[in-house]
Amino acid sequence: MPTKMNRRIILRAHPNGVPRESDFAADEAPIPEPSEGQFLTRNLFLSIDAGFRQWMNEGAGDGYLQAMALGEPVMGLVLGEVAASHHPQYRVGDLVMGRTRWEEWSLADGSDYLAPVERAAGIDLSHHLGAIGPTGLTAYFGLRDIGRPQAGETVVVSTAAGAVGMIASQIAKIRGCRVVGLTSTEAKCRWLVDHLGLDAAIEYREPGVLAAGLDRHCPNGIDVYFDNVGGRVLEAALARLAMGARVVMCGALASYEGGDPVPGPTNLFKLVTQRATMRGFMVTDYVSEYPAAVAELAGWIASGQLHPVERMLDGIEQTPRAFCEMFRGVNLGKLVVRLDAARGAA
Amino acid sequence: MPTKMNRRIILRAHPNGVPRESDFAADEAPIPEPSEGQFLTRNLFLSIDAGFRQWMNEGAGDGYLQAMALGEPVMGLVLGEVAASHHPQYRVGDLVMGRTRWEEWSLADGSDYLAPVERAAGIDLSHHLGAIGPTGLTAYFGLRDIGRPQAGETVVVSTAAGAVGMIASQIAKIRGCRVVGLTSTEAKCRWLVDHLGLDAAIEYREPGVLAAGLDRHCPNGIDVYFDNVGGRVLEAALARLAMGARVVMCGALASYEGGDPVPGPTNLFKLVTQRATMRGFMVTDYVSEYPAAVAELAGWIASGQLHPVERMLDGIEQTPRAFCEMFRGVNLGKLVVRLDAARGAA
Repeated sequence: MPTKMNRRIILRAHPNGVPRESDFAADEAPIPEPSEGQFLTRNLFLSIDAGFRQWMNEGAGDGYLQAMALGEPVMGLVLGEVAASHHPQYRVGDLVMGRTRWEEWSLADGSDYLAPVERAAGIDLSHHLGAIGPTGLTAYFGLRDIGRPQAGETVVVSTAAGAVGMIASQIAKIRGCRVVGLTSTEAKCRWLVDHLGLDAAIEYREPGVLAAGLDRHCPNGIDVYFDNVGGRVLEAALARLAMGARVVMCGALASYEGGDPVPGPTNLFKLVTQRATMRGFMVTDYVSEYPAAVAELAGWIASGQLHPVERMLDGIEQTPRAFCEMFRGVNLGKLVVRLDAARGAA
Repeated sequence: MPTKMNRRIILRAHPNGVPRESDFAADEAPIPEPSEGQFLTRNLFLSIDAGFRQWMNEGAGDGYLQAMALGEPVMGLVLGEVAASHHPQYRVGDLVMGRTRWEEWSLADGSDYLAPVERAAGIDLSHHLGAIGPTGLTAYFGLRDIGRPQAGETVVVSTAAGAVGMIASQIAKIRGCRVVGLTSTEAKCRWLVDHLGLDAAIEYREPGVLAAGLDRHCPNGIDVYFDNVGGRVLEAALARLAMGARVVMCGALASYEGGDPVPGPTNLFKLVTQRATMRGFMVTDYVSEYPAAVAELAGWIASGQLHPVERMLDGIEQTPRAFCEMFRGVNLGKLVVRLDAARGAA
């Protein structure tokens, strides 16, 4: 039985640059009671996503999301089970996934993408936050609708060892492309080539290494660039775009830490000479297409073509460490925290 | 009769920032003789285009065009008449338009887009370099295929009083849009509203004026941004993109002067949250569609919906002054130099 208190992780301080564990704190609050039109979820897994870092800054609200408030639980994606409901569309026992908070119990009203989850047979439940969840679907739709990789084309994926990048890289391989991954350490480069089967991998933190690697591994230019970073990594990719290239604008890791704005690429004119397209998207635009996409991703996992690499930490108290670890660049694949409810239930 | 020498304007020095007349010099050379597969054009009008500035820098070759060489005639777009031909597809008397050089006579082999020109009835010949030529067609295809403005949408056009911008602005008005022009002086702002019928115009050189003007005149955000500038003007537009916005990447005036790279926009992540598209193109990709587009543009001119504003200087010796004037931001509309051959022939 879970405790009758709701254990949560609150934002204690606005992180200064790279987040530190001391920016967060654990607390407890009474488990909330749903009113009419609301339901309560017992949370099973928390998704650790670098993208939420940007809304931890003071005054970071941007018309898409509001800035997180100090003393409040941190905003994040959660997979949970409906534990009580006064909402006509959600029943006790339903699996749901959506943007709530780092806490063991969440009150919801069905907004914030609390999409019902159809459990995929033979696939770990936590992958509904990863390979067959928001990160995998982000890779899937970004490539399908913007990247449109054709067999034989060269696809470059940034943060290729991360949750979105590893899926994008593998889908591009399934599509018959030459795939070059960008990642932050030599160890991760080796892993991308040896374990995920990429054609090449390049460390992107040293500009000279990045430039030389792209020149070497993309002799005919870059047809598709899947961007999770922005800034000077994007600039290096733009400099090598092939004619008619597509740039999938997915994330901006370089900008998530706040502080001074990260300089943008100085060579956007390349889009003109290369007749290239750069387009952004949000996976939540595709909710109606999730089931078909999940089925295709799950099929690739079942056939061994797609590896849903995941690192799991146990207990909500691990969440600050997991989140901070992500910014130190040591992680491979999708990072999730398993809550006590999942340990009991799984 | 034109002189039997070929009067030309050569590049004397690589401009340092804004070009100066002393960066150019007049010279004379013998009129060349076409060999087999070549033809000779007697040039009638030179097109003055800021975009060519970028290839005047030392080592500016970029895979699209080579850097211009000192002591050689300056590269530019020219409208001419075939005067002698040993080329099967070009006959004496044909009108042709293409990228040759600032000179009275040019040797050509049909490459470099020396497209035949079908003279449009009732329209000044020089407009084949402007409103119904490369600049007008650039506005036409960029809006048609990338901007796709819908009636009622807000369209922002940078360098709106320039050759491309004034046509893009007017086409967007014809399409029923709310059109806001960005330009460099208050006098040009007035002209855009009073003479071209734009809904509003904003001086873009002062960042605060630009930001306040965009906030005021684009209360629902920007659906289409036609970018001829790049840099911080692009950044200001990105900050105000409406959901699903389209950014037409056409030019990069801010970068043409060389020197230190102009910082790119720091807020490309806006493309993600706004699901926006940014795409570059070159008008020369559309050669096969020129006749239909010219017919539509000419129809709008004939009906008085489109004003093909032009400033003309006489004599090849005026070319350096015309080119430098363009960078001082005093010009309205398309700038052309009429050569002696056209003064005699027109």
